[in-house]
Amino acid sequence: MTTAPTRPRIAITMGDPAGVGPEICLRALSDVDIAKACIPIVLGDSEVLKRVASACDLPAPENVLDDASDLRSVDAPAVMDVGTVEVDVLTPGITSASTGEAAYRYVVQSITCATRGQVDAICTAPISKEALHAGGHAYPGHTEIFAEQTGAAPTCMMFVSDALCCSLVTGHVGLNAVSGCLSERRVLDVLELTADAMQGLRGKAPAITVCGLNPHAGEKGLIGQGEEESVILPAIERAREKGIEVIGPLPADTAFLPQRRAETDAYVCMYHDQALIPLKMLAFDTAVNMTLGLPFIRTSVDHGTALDIAWQGKASANSLREAILLAAGLAIPCA
Amino acid sequence: MTTAPTRPRIAITMGDPAGVGPEICLRALSDVDIAKACIPIVLGDSEVLKRVASACDLPAPENVLDDASDLRSVDAPAVMDVGTVEVDVLTPGITSASTGEAAYRYVVQSITCATRGQVDAICTAPISKEALHAGGHAYPGHTEIFAEQTGAAPTCMMFVSDALCCSLVTGHVGLNAVSGCLSERRVLDVLELTADAMQGLRGKAPAITVCGLNPHAGEKGLIGQGEEESVILPAIERAREKGIEVIGPLPADTAFLPQRRAETDAYVCMYHDQALIPLKMLAFDTAVNMTLGLPFIRTSVDHGTALDIAWQGKASANSLREAILLAAGLAIPCA
Repeated sequence: MTTAPTRPRIAITMGDPAGVGPEICLRALSDVDIAKACIPIVLGDSEVLKRVASACDLPAPENVLDDASDLRSVDAPAVMDVGTVEVDVLTPGITSASTGEAAYRYVVQSITCATRGQVDAICTAPISKEALHAGGHAYPGHTEIFAEQTGAAPTCMMFVSDALCCSLVTGHVGLNAVSGCLSERRVLDVLELTADAMQGLRGKAPAITVCGLNPHAGEKGLIGQGEEESVILPAIERAREKGIEVIGPLPADTAFLPQRRAETDAYVCMYHDQALIPLKMLAFDTAVNMTLGLPFIRTSVDHGTALDIAWQGKASANSLREAILLAAGLAIPCA
Repeated sequence: MTTAPTRPRIAITMGDPAGVGPEICLRALSDVDIAKACIPIVLGDSEVLKRVASACDLPAPENVLDDASDLRSVDAPAVMDVGTVEVDVLTPGITSASTGEAAYRYVVQSITCATRGQVDAICTAPISKEALHAGGHAYPGHTEIFAEQTGAAPTCMMFVSDALCCSLVTGHVGLNAVSGCLSERRVLDVLELTADAMQGLRGKAPAITVCGLNPHAGEKGLIGQGEEESVILPAIERAREKGIEVIGPLPADTAFLPQRRAETDAYVCMYHDQALIPLKMLAFDTAVNMTLGLPFIRTSVDHGTALDIAWQGKASANSLREAILLAAGLAIPCA
């Protein structure tokens, strides 16, 4: 007698209710490939989803749960009501303290569910940082909410696509603050998190390319504060001592040329746009954002709330779809 | 009675003698298309060129001038001896104070010739910043030599290719110093230089896209020091008042996606790698580096000395070729 393989339960946070999150979540709930790979459970607001379904001519959610205790027995795509936003005063494309608060609660609920083993992984739809702050939650972004509320350290952002995988040493910090955030320990942590993640994703030890911080990777200390020699190179040497295959620090402007990409499984980048410029050029709409170092799998779309097209049925659900499928592939069902 | 159109004389500085400069200059001297478009005159060292020609199996230079006063009558590809490096102790791939000094003198000579109207434009082969400094000339790069010695202000670097044109608000400065180098005046200057240059290059007023400094272009001041609102946006508004068509500041990670590129003639970027990462991905080996704001046309290769392959005949002369042809197209013969 054989048992059908158990599909992982993936919590999908609905994101800011005024953005494109609700409509891409609706598309995910009715996606055949997603339903084969996992049980998608949108943590959000069923009333909002119904209104968006009507506005965008999408199927309304059928399976609505009121309580997280129902999660363990769910075996089909579902919505779990976390509520809190007043649907009647909600305007598509207009975020507020109220939408920021709601988006925050969906994320907190997902962390609770993942920590209790009620879901096997989390995938997040986009939130508005402005609304999050207006709602009284002054986090720079999702990653920091997850890091703080799970107590996980170190963590880092990693973007995964077929064309390019990049981890970030610094995330949503001003360009002016990047140099001050670098340390040998931090660069080494990101190298180790990246090596572990790539082993899990690809089943083999990766070749990692590390970008320098300054133009021309500092040109032997002539440009910048010598960060390449004092911080990045020592971290690379320690990573090599631990058996990680690393090249760098290389000038960022040539690091992403085809020949170097062919020899690289993952990049470690010093700052947000050093990774995101090449990533979006090579894998717009297909890259998945992961948080490495958490006690559970967490993936995310790589786009924002797109308020200008919210609730119009125009938003592509591709990035969310890729993020859910990646989470499903990596998650180990608890039940 | 008609006169044959006069071809412009283009001074080509040989670059660091130990790098790939000499061999790509030799290729330029025997390039049929270059000879049709202009009279290329390499400012360098004929003994070095002869030795490199022999090592790389390239034609040795035939037409060697000893004095700049001969330049006005030259009508075929030529070399002008600026000398100074001892060819017997020169080792391919090994730069020194001596090679840095030589490379510096070629550039200074080119400025003298252009200022006196002996040549119509300048195109530079790559120098080694380390050797330049060892030779006692502590410039960050070519651009700063040209700016200082011509007294031109403001100037900026611009990279030109069929796929992408980008001007830089800051150049070879450490990432840490970029924010401190930004001012409304500087961003406006670069916008005006770029608009003028594009008018000359394409014959019409350009649409310019300006990148923000911080991740997500600062996300309404939530990331960074508010540079987008306090510096970049006011400069854009002043440029618009002067009739320049400008969009921005946009997040750099989506600014280079195909749809935005299709609506953009030139980008203004805040720092080196913000421009050079997309530029090298889209136009490696074909982009030309120009200095805007000088009293004469100056273009340059967009690559370095490539010491690891110097004097081996492997270096591509494509970028130098493009740079010479662009200079030739823009130069107005003085004679």
